[in-house]
Amino acid sequence: MKTAIVATGSELINGLVQDSNSKFLAENLSNFGFEIENILICGDQKESIKNTIYYASQNADLVFVTGGLGPTEDDLTKEAFAEVLNLELIYSQEIEKKLKTIFCNHGSDMSSNNLSQAYIPEGAEIINNERGTAPALKLEKQNKTFYLLPGVPAELKYLFKNKVLKDLKKISQNKIMIREFNFIGIGESTLASQVKQLNLPSELIISYQAGKAEVKLRLKIIQNNSLNIEDQTELLNQAVRVIKSEFSDYIYSEDQQSITEKVHELLVTKNVRVATAESFTGGLIAERLTEKAGSSNYFLGSIVAYNKKIKNQILNIKTELLNNFGTVSKECVQAMVESAAEIFGSDLTVATTGAAGPDNHDGKRAGTMFIAILYQEQLKIFELHKNYGRKLNRYYTSQIVLFEIYKLIKESEEK
Amino acid sequence: MKTAIVATGSELINGLVQDSNSKFLAENLSNFGFEIENILICGDQKESIKNTIYYASQNADLVFVTGGLGPTEDDLTKEAFAEVLNLELIYSQEIEKKLKTIFCNHGSDMSSNNLSQAYIPEGAEIINNERGTAPALKLEKQNKTFYLLPGVPAELKYLFKNKVLKDLKKISQNKIMIREFNFIGIGESTLASQVKQLNLPSELIISYQAGKAEVKLRLKIIQNNSLNIEDQTELLNQAVRVIKSEFSDYIYSEDQQSITEKVHELLVTKNVRVATAESFTGGLIAERLTEKAGSSNYFLGSIVAYNKKIKNQILNIKTELLNNFGTVSKECVQAMVESAAEIFGSDLTVATTGAAGPDNHDGKRAGTMFIAILYQEQLKIFELHKNYGRKLNRYYTSQIVLFEIYKLIKESEEK
Repeated sequence: MKTAIVATGSELINGLVQDSNSKFLAENLSNFGFEIENILICGDQKESIKNTIYYASQNADLVFVTGGLGPTEDDLTKEAFAEVLNLELIYSQEIEKKLKTIFCNHGSDMSSNNLSQAYIPEGAEIINNERGTAPALKLEKQNKTFYLLPGVPAELKYLFKNKVLKDLKKISQNKIMIREFNFIGIGESTLASQVKQLNLPSELIISYQAGKAEVKLRLKIIQNNSLNIEDQTELLNQAVRVIKSEFSDYIYSEDQQSITEKVHELLVTKNVRVATAESFTGGLIAERLTEKAGSSNYFLGSIVAYNKKIKNQILNIKTELLNNFGTVSKECVQAMVESAAEIFGSDLTVATTGAAGPDNHDGKRAGTMFIAILYQEQLKIFELHKNYGRKLNRYYTSQIVLFEIYKLIKESEEK
Repeated sequence: MKTAIVATGSELINGLVQDSNSKFLAENLSNFGFEIENILICGDQKESIKNTIYYASQNADLVFVTGGLGPTEDDLTKEAFAEVLNLELIYSQEIEKKLKTIFCNHGSDMSSNNLSQAYIPEGAEIINNERGTAPALKLEKQNKTFYLLPGVPAELKYLFKNKVLKDLKKISQNKIMIREFNFIGIGESTLASQVKQLNLPSELIISYQAGKAEVKLRLKIIQNNSLNIEDQTELLNQAVRVIKSEFSDYIYSEDQQSITEKVHELLVTKNVRVATAESFTGGLIAERLTEKAGSSNYFLGSIVAYNKKIKNQILNIKTELLNNFGTVSKECVQAMVESAAEIFGSDLTVATTGAAGPDNHDGKRAGTMFIAILYQEQLKIFELHKNYGRKLNRYYTSQIVLFEIYKLIKESEEK
């Protein structure tokens, strides 16, 4: 069912406040198979609200309007709504009674403003709001359903979850299935073009979402008349199998967990003690490994050695090696990881060195990056040549490090 | 000038991602006197984008469209836009050339998908995007101005601030004066209530924006008939003087520069060599001090000592001290900073220890945090008791550290 969301409020339109209500509604409605056509934000002026509600109702059969139900002068949603639908505003004794009880309980005086909340469009059904003074309203007209909800996020969420959702489940016709995958080490456009070559069934809606040095792929399937639930399930599962086998090197999550969460859980469970020696990542890997509470169970520490002298003095890397191969080299990253493993007595040790950019560094092009991981006497060295800019170069490297830690421990577990 | 913002993307319409771009644009445009009529979000389907752009252009003379400029199949903004305005899409050799350079620099292959980005509506002006592959576009037609901007927030912000804004200043009719201050170490509501007591003139529009462990205060004044430009300037300057004298301990910036930028510039200029010893901040301070290119001119390195044993073995802190006072103590942070200064031979040394939370740590309540800074033989120790949650506790400490480094060096300069 085509759905539109209208959010009213000058604080939203001026960018002072982020409209989190619409995101909340959209996410929940999508999950129940409603197809969101538009999210429309307008200010407090009645004409603007009227135009926006009218446009929303032209493109959707289910319309949510949020905000502007309060008692102040700029709360004009009900008036605008009634004018668009050619309805009278009538006075509700029921609401007046409830308002009086609320104010009595609060021990506050009720102003005449507050009684303006008792006016509702004729034919509207009152949805009690136990969290605030403005009741929500529901109205059906010309085969369209409208919900008017208060703009206070806590009230909106409460009403939606406890009152509106039950109603909606009755009218949702579609069963939707969704599967998601998170990728590290492959770009959005490369992934998209490779997925395209797999020729997945056209019933599948495939979408991509680029994150910070990672990509999310979503497969969605909506039940329709030509497809029964078993076929739908099988179609999706088949696609999931194909995606997983084609991109096993890049998928780190199917359950929306972040890579730091994945690594954290694994390190806590497996009791692997970790240390790092960082050059161009400057402490970023240590910082990400200690993001979660409980990380002191596995994380020992890090040495950030940001210049040649410190690499020599604190990480004990021979001046000869540094001079012969440079700090941005396989040889250097290997010496760093071996030294750090000795200093910390860690089970798994990571080292990084690179030219973060924008300028070249120690004779190496910006974006030349080395990672060494030492685990169970096995040394793995990665040489990366990417140049996404200084900040993302560092972050990209930390993503690869976290993912490789995850893979290494998982692999050793399977042996 | 009436303005509308159209944000495209199925991830927005499905509520998977919060549309932060529109809030950013709305806020900045409002500040320059543009009157936002609507923020409209639609999905990736061409028909939906067309309808939405058309509606936006009916109600506004300045229209921003964001998202859908990428190389994948669901990037249809340019096509939809061209159809609404009856324009042809033409192939731009200029963009092709730039794309080839970008991919060459990244060391990645370019797919044929990527070349789809070279098509633009006829008559569009190309706005170079140094942060990504999709250029922004500007087009004027029938007295209306359209901007098409990429949906990646970092790219959009960069392009808006560095390219679009200059353009807009020319067409903004209202003279608006704005002054901004960035605060560290004082909360939004405390600041707001203290500012209120200053009784600043009512012509000033005062707004607050809470950032990550910092607050921005904005003073805005809009020229009107009752106020000439000299009075307006004097009114604003007077308020600026009051704010600066009242809150000098908390203001770190008046020019929108971040605290990392401020500290970076100062350290580069003053040639102060810095090292850190970090416990609960886990490398975050080192990471932030190395964010900018050129940080190797002042940053030596860091030792992240995440448990008692490592503090003893690597930072040489006596077991006796650790046992008597605990790792979260004034005594420990002092020993850490002194040891790190010796190990690194730094001019300015920072140490941190604390209970990041959510649980208490080593007998201290979550949110108990110690900072030591040693500079020119002077030791400063800060004891913080805040509890914003693990992540923000760490970040808040790094903010205080950066700000105190800035103040210390500035002070010593004035002597």
